[in-house]
Amino acid sequence: MRENCGVVAIASHNNVAENIYIALMALQHRGQEAAGMAIYNGGKINNYKGLGLVDEAFKGINISNIKGNIGIGHVYYSIKISSPENAQPTLLHTSAGDIAIAHNGIITNSKQLMEELMESGHTFFYGNEEEVVIYLLADFLKFKSFEKAVKLLMKKLAGSYSFTFMLNNRVFGLRDALGIKPLCIGKIKDGYIIASESVAIDALGGELVRDVMPGELIEIFPDGYKSYKLMEEKYKAHCFFEYVYFARADSIIHNKEVYKVREKLGEILAREHPVDADYVIPIPDSGRAHAYGFSKASGIPLAEGLMKNRYIARTFILPTQKLREKLVQLKLNPVKSIVNGNRIVLVDDSIVRGTTIKKIINLLKTHGAKEVHVRIGSPPIIAPCYFGIDMTTRDQLIASNRSIEEVRKKINADSLAYISIDGLVEAIGIDKKNLCLGCVTGEYPVKIEGEKLRFQERLGIKWI
Amino acid sequence: MRENCGVVAIASHNNVAENIYIALMALQHRGQEAAGMAIYNGGKINNYKGLGLVDEAFKGINISNIKGNIGIGHVYYSIKISSPENAQPTLLHTSAGDIAIAHNGIITNSKQLMEELMESGHTFFYGNEEEVVIYLLADFLKFKSFEKAVKLLMKKLAGSYSFTFMLNNRVFGLRDALGIKPLCIGKIKDGYIIASESVAIDALGGELVRDVMPGELIEIFPDGYKSYKLMEEKYKAHCFFEYVYFARADSIIHNKEVYKVREKLGEILAREHPVDADYVIPIPDSGRAHAYGFSKASGIPLAEGLMKNRYIARTFILPTQKLREKLVQLKLNPVKSIVNGNRIVLVDDSIVRGTTIKKIINLLKTHGAKEVHVRIGSPPIIAPCYFGIDMTTRDQLIASNRSIEEVRKKINADSLAYISIDGLVEAIGIDKKNLCLGCVTGEYPVKIEGEKLRFQERLGIKWI
Amino acid sequence: MRENCGVVAIASHNNVAENIYIALMALQHRGQEAAGMAIYNGGKINNYKGLGLVDEAFKGINISNIKGNIGIGHVYYSIKISSPENAQPTLLHTSAGDIAIAHNGIITNSKQLMEELMESGHTFFYGNEEEVVIYLLADFLKFKSFEKAVKLLMKKLAGSYSFTFMLNNRVFGLRDALGIKPLCIGKIKDGYIIASESVAIDALGGELVRDVMPGELIEIFPDGYKSYKLMEEKYKAHCFFEYVYFARADSIIHNKEVYKVREKLGEILAREHPVDADYVIPIPDSGRAHAYGFSKASGIPLAEGLMKNRYIARTFILPTQKLREKLVQLKLNPVKSIVNGNRIVLVDDSIVRGTTIKKIINLLKTHGAKEVHVRIGSPPIIAPCYFGIDMTTRDQLIASNRSIEEVRKKINADSLAYISIDGLVEAIGIDKKNLCLGCVTGEYPVKIEGEKLRFQERLGIKWI
Amino acid sequence: MRENCGVVAIASHNNVAENIYIALMALQHRGQEAAGMAIYNGGKINNYKGLGLVDEAFKGINISNIKGNIGIGHVYYSIKISSPENAQPTLLHTSAGDIAIAHNGIITNSKQLMEELMESGHTFFYGNEEEVVIYLLADFLKFKSFEKAVKLLMKKLAGSYSFTFMLNNRVFGLRDALGIKPLCIGKIKDGYIIASESVAIDALGGELVRDVMPGELIEIFPDGYKSYKLMEEKYKAHCFFEYVYFARADSIIHNKEVYKVREKLGEILAREHPVDADYVIPIPDSGRAHAYGFSKASGIPLAEGLMKNRYIARTFILPTQKLREKLVQLKLNPVKSIVNGNRIVLVDDSIVRGTTIKKIINLLKTHGAKEVHVRIGSPPIIAPCYFGIDMTTRDQLIASNRSIEEVRKKINADSLAYISIDGLVEAIGIDKKNLCLGCVTGEYPVKIEGEKLRFQERLGIKWI
Repeated sequence: MRENCGVVAIASHNNVAENIYIALMALQHRGQEAAGMAIYNGGKINNYKGLGLVDEAFKGINISNIKGNIGIGHVYYSIKISSPENAQPTLLHTSAGDIAIAHNGIITNSKQLMEELMESGHTFFYGNEEEVVIYLLADFLKFKSFEKAVKLLMKKLAGSYSFTFMLNNRVFGLRDALGIKPLCIGKIKDGYIIASESVAIDALGGELVRDVMPGELIEIFPDGYKSYKLMEEKYKAHCFFEYVYFARADSIIHNKEVYKVREKLGEILAREHPVDADYVIPIPDSGRAHAYGFSKASGIPLAEGLMKNRYIARTFILPTQKLREKLVQLKLNPVKSIVNGNRIVLVDDSIVRGTTIKKIINLLKTHGAKEVHVRIGSPPIIAPCYFGIDMTTRDQLIASNRSIEEVRKKINADSLAYISIDGLVEAIGIDKKNLCLGCVTGEYPVKIEGEKLRFQERLGIKWI
Repeated sequence: MRENCGVVAIASHNNVAENIYIALMALQHRGQEAAGMAIYNGGKINNYKGLGLVDEAFKGINISNIKGNIGIGHVYYSIKISSPENAQPTLLHTSAGDIAIAHNGIITNSKQLMEELMESGHTFFYGNEEEVVIYLLADFLKFKSFEKAVKLLMKKLAGSYSFTFMLNNRVFGLRDALGIKPLCIGKIKDGYIIASESVAIDALGGELVRDVMPGELIEIFPDGYKSYKLMEEKYKAHCFFEYVYFARADSIIHNKEVYKVREKLGEILAREHPVDADYVIPIPDSGRAHAYGFSKASGIPLAEGLMKNRYIARTFILPTQKLREKLVQLKLNPVKSIVNGNRIVLVDDSIVRGTTIKKIINLLKTHGAKEVHVRIGSPPIIAPCYFGIDMTTRDQLIASNRSIEEVRKKINADSLAYISIDGLVEAIGIDKKNLCLGCVTGEYPVKIEGEKLRFQERLGIKWI
Repeated sequence: MRENCGVVAIASHNNVAENIYIALMALQHRGQEAAGMAIYNGGKINNYKGLGLVDEAFKGINISNIKGNIGIGHVYYSIKISSPENAQPTLLHTSAGDIAIAHNGIITNSKQLMEELMESGHTFFYGNEEEVVIYLLADFLKFKSFEKAVKLLMKKLAGSYSFTFMLNNRVFGLRDALGIKPLCIGKIKDGYIIASESVAIDALGGELVRDVMPGELIEIFPDGYKSYKLMEEKYKAHCFFEYVYFARADSIIHNKEVYKVREKLGEILAREHPVDADYVIPIPDSGRAHAYGFSKASGIPLAEGLMKNRYIARTFILPTQKLREKLVQLKLNPVKSIVNGNRIVLVDDSIVRGTTIKKIINLLKTHGAKEVHVRIGSPPIIAPCYFGIDMTTRDQLIASNRSIEEVRKKINADSLAYISIDGLVEAIGIDKKNLCLGCVTGEYPVKIEGEKLRFQERLGIKWI
Repeated sequence: MRENCGVVAIASHNNVAENIYIALMALQHRGQEAAGMAIYNGGKINNYKGLGLVDEAFKGINISNIKGNIGIGHVYYSIKISSPENAQPTLLHTSAGDIAIAHNGIITNSKQLMEELMESGHTFFYGNEEEVVIYLLADFLKFKSFEKAVKLLMKKLAGSYSFTFMLNNRVFGLRDALGIKPLCIGKIKDGYIIASESVAIDALGGELVRDVMPGELIEIFPDGYKSYKLMEEKYKAHCFFEYVYFARADSIIHNKEVYKVREKLGEILAREHPVDADYVIPIPDSGRAHAYGFSKASGIPLAEGLMKNRYIARTFILPTQKLREKLVQLKLNPVKSIVNGNRIVLVDDSIVRGTTIKKIINLLKTHGAKEVHVRIGSPPIIAPCYFGIDMTTRDQLIASNRSIEEVRKKINADSLAYISIDGLVEAIGIDKKNLCLGCVTGEYPVKIEGEKLRFQERLGIKWI
């Protein structure tokens, strides 16, 4: 239901393919549908892509034999992909040279840009956002210096984007001026890396240098990096959901460790919505850190009351739809001694459609839970996200047109409480004005047809 | 390093293949190398086997189309398997009819039995333990009634065995007289089931009826089951490691829920070996329940200080050995805010070779842990296991010829403590005489060449 | 429709796997469903098998790395096989040691022998003929010397068999006393070979030594071979169809080159059944040598009037049954300038069901052939074969209950003529009494339930 | 060594995918590396491509379920392809709509055109010739009517091209003004077809209507076709090699049946270069029709003296390079009775590098051939081809810098003779000025850097 992607770029004194492979493994939670890497060698960029998890996607390729000191990589999450051609990086041979790009985000005006480009004579292979970006960049590069061209590109693009990309043997990271998706710089043993999350740097035994700033273009070299501050917005729009769910708990984004934010969310939840109960039970694995915080703040003991069958995650190759549905229901099994006869606080990060939590509450009650109190580490999600996923509509969101009490009844909980927006902001520790809260407020940092624009009067790109 | 298998048998009014598939999914943690099922239909037993996890093993087979109301299944764990032929169930066409068998355990005298059978004219395809069992059974069935034949078979076999097996259209479960490996009976919607663990019954929405007793043969029917008490030993020898590590936490074995045993182990550990520290950190996922218990009993807050990269578990298809080694090291990444500057209690279920825990302690110290105190939920493993795994030797076991202080130094912990044997027995709640403690005492319930026999004077099969 | 298999055995001073692979490639025309080889090394026999053509069957195996100087191989033709387990060689571990066997032929009393063996306590994996043979041999070896045991085995077996087999590190060829299927001995660079046809020896650059005699057991060594004449029949029963169709044209069987026999068949056909026509057209590739002979003897020019689409042979992986049927019809396409307005002599080796030839005649007439005269290089097939294929029944044979004139009408030919039995015998050059003519006379050299036995009074095994 | 491709287009009242599949099967001899089809349905063109023979390339696709009445197809021959992305048809989404193209031929100025296009701002995925063609066409379509745009395209392109292509729901065939590669129109049951060779029409049970004329654009509809004569050259340049080797013998090109041309080549060879011998032996299958003609004209009897092992053709999946080399040598095995002690006329279509014929002559002599006289159905190949293959260089051609006598010595033949150019022209029956004889004369119909241009003074496109 929640879409995301992971990107990486490395410039090194040595071959980079193995390190990109390892970095993608560390970012695997951001995309499991496809993976790819583009490596510069011998005067051109070579592209390696495949479907599935990183290990499957590169199965036929001897990664250790790939030559090249400069490269980018991508893990893809989408239900729309069916052919390795659609995986990223996207590579094109342009008048400016070979351009390869890996993208995390959604260009909200890509359809309109594509139409303009086709009118001006461009042809499209797949008609995807990355082709649009490369065509624009190549067109601008015909008349402009590189930084000017990228600036013109950014002026054209709306929406969220954290790119890693290559122009022949140069390699870059670029983050939109609102800073919606994360992107950070690291120093590794024999070079520099740009990645969606700091865990990719950890995986290579490197050091996190800092976040790529909103509106900043970074070029990396084996011995350093160079910054171009191309655009600036008065207010940023960091996605709060990265802290709540997307990012790995051991990542550090804008100097906040994700685990600590989640633990804090649990503590604030316990403070805002206390309850008398026998056990705090996390929904594994998404609610675990929140539950630890809730238990610590409330003094109610923690228990692993729901056991996860980790093998059922791989439901994509199950033989029949019927069997698939049966098995998804078996993902969680209650620990009877914890559940039976007890009052349970059930903690999770968020509720989107409400179908899963409803099934879990039902499961707990069937196994003798006396009471089930639900505590959620994010405010009610009432509106779609246009920057990381483009398919949920309001009527699919359980909290969209319902009061909290109505939601509680629907999921059959004994009590239900969400953290407040202020509690969320406190836990993250970033000024509310610099967070994108679109899905919990319905006000967006980018103009979206039919939606409210936040800070309309104050939006203004400061050109440097 | 630790070998095990899972078995299941179902008799139903309806087709059983889908339910066997689901039950095997629930038992997947007991074996990931291969899976198979044998189903009786149209006068004969058909066998379906494949390599890999359950979903891979049956990938080309439309499970939903398999006809037959009687069947058995198996998940296999071994490093020795390379061809689906070697997967189980093993099916043979004998003078007594078709016999299929699924086995959890090790027949310790199988080599000798095979030699005897070859001398008496039998030929072997694979020379495995299951062929031995079927040949013996078929030979006895020529002259004896079914129960008599099984009794003679049991008299011949030494070691551990929880079998499910079929003789034409009849289906059975059989457990050795020492009750080394678990086996239980359940009632499902339209039939009866026998399985290694109760989670397989849960997965089908059924009810646990009871354990199969040591020395008991159970025949199941769609409407009930029949018990044959064929053998009895004065003392049983239930494997304590099922409680500590092998079984799923939500399984119930001999009326003890595994999760509760593990939590209790953690509590007793905290009582036996208290320590002053900032955080209790479990090694995910094996040490989690123990850590919860330790935290509860000690009052030291719990934290998920080590994040597991779940995708790296699938290391078998990684491209090169070098990359595989690199990636295995990345399975765990520390949460810096929890680790840095703090005193850590690191909790796990057991230490076998000590290489993993040593790496983790090193990882924590590299990331700034002030102290690392290791607490282990089982006594030191000083001797091999002959009933579930036959390859570890004493010199591979870190605790085999070392004092605890020597082990502590070797793994570089600030303190190290194991639970006592009495603490272990208390947590499990089963009389010490009825547990197999071979790997922690070096005394075994079955005669093993070169090892000490426990209760030698008192060993005696009571024939009923 | 026509079943056959190919076998090979090699004893060498060097590794044999590559040479067995090459020999199987040369025998590929005898079986395309599966292939396998068994190689002795390090005290035991290892077995490598797979489905498909030789190159597919061994796809995952590095043939060049297989160690062992002694081995046998097999190519399998059957519609019944679906799992590599059923491929040959069949390998069993018996009280006498490892026995592997590769078989060309049909044991006509295998069902009865299997029942006897099961009564005496044997179990069967697949219940195939090769298991029967190994069980019998292993049983006899318990009490008898090797040659005696093989002699007892031969006494038990009815039907046709050309075996290559191994007993631990010894390797043998064995041919039934009637000599139904071919088998020959060759000398290669660093060893000796036994194979179904001499083309396998050619493929290794070796020299044909001689045929294995009917009833003879041959043991090969790297430096020679040893003969055991175990049985002798007064009359032999060499399959005439090997000369007409089965064997490759460049093979030499009983000192007759198959190509020359086929050319001679064409010449005799032209002499026995002359016709006035414009072109002699072979049905590719089965009728080509016969057509050359017919053209030479008649003076009518030869033309390749039917072009074969060689890619359609591989119909087994075509997407749908409908498409498969459509495509099979496209296997042959007429050359219009040859066919249109001309009188054609269409030559083939045999007619079994008559469906193919009927379609071809229709195709030629549709494309303007004025007359189509069919000439067939074997007598009418009126009865089943029990020694190479066990599934055709009389009502599937177009000539079984029809006069030649009735067959002609059914296939819509302008004239139809078969070679006479005497013409066939003349072309082959072997005494009629020593040929198996079962399928063209209905009299068989072995007792078959419900069929006439040939030379009944004179049948008698001479024990040496 | 010899490169070619096959193309097809169908417009029908019914779904076309199955018929395109069948037509590609009939054209399989023109390309075995990859296959693809593009089908218009539901407002857009869908593309299906894969590596390998037609049956392998479409293995995972249910051809019978593909909807759409308009489509094109392609079989690809090249050593350069390694990914299905590179297979054809090539499909692009342009400002003019979806354009898909299938190409047989070589655009000799594609590099230069690509540079021009990149300078004008175009980007390239693969940088192949088909992208160039589509980009040019899409650019012209912005300002010109369809026929005008195609005419401008043709003006830009140099080299050989027989295209089938689609513009949204319209489907076309286009042949270069020199008519280098063949292309023909057929009527099938419920529509019209354009294909590289008439055998594709035969395969669908259709009727050959006529060749597409050089310089002609044909649009097909379910009920007819429309012709646009866009360009005309004074002299054509039909590739003579299509008659000698490329095309299937049962194809009709420019009203000449290929088989008859080849038979005639053999007859003229016998007349031009008579020899006294015992047997005429064709090299299977390329020399067969020529050998029939030679035998007919000379009266020397024909014999299939070389047996081909058809299974060894599939050498691409053989395990090791060493084994591959060994096996390629086994492709042909002599029939001893034909070869031994006899004088042989060995007939083939052409000699390129001379390595194969040398091996065959050696093989025949090793097996006792008294004399080997080589007769070749084409003149000596002394220069590269730039229109169907771009990789042979002069020094790879055995006849390039050698007299015929030198070639004879090198291949160790007793005599060697090639057909004369006049004999070749006589056999084909097309005016010498309208044939491309580049590879046997070194004079080319298109300007090639560093090569002689034929008819330079008279070259002139007549615009209609």
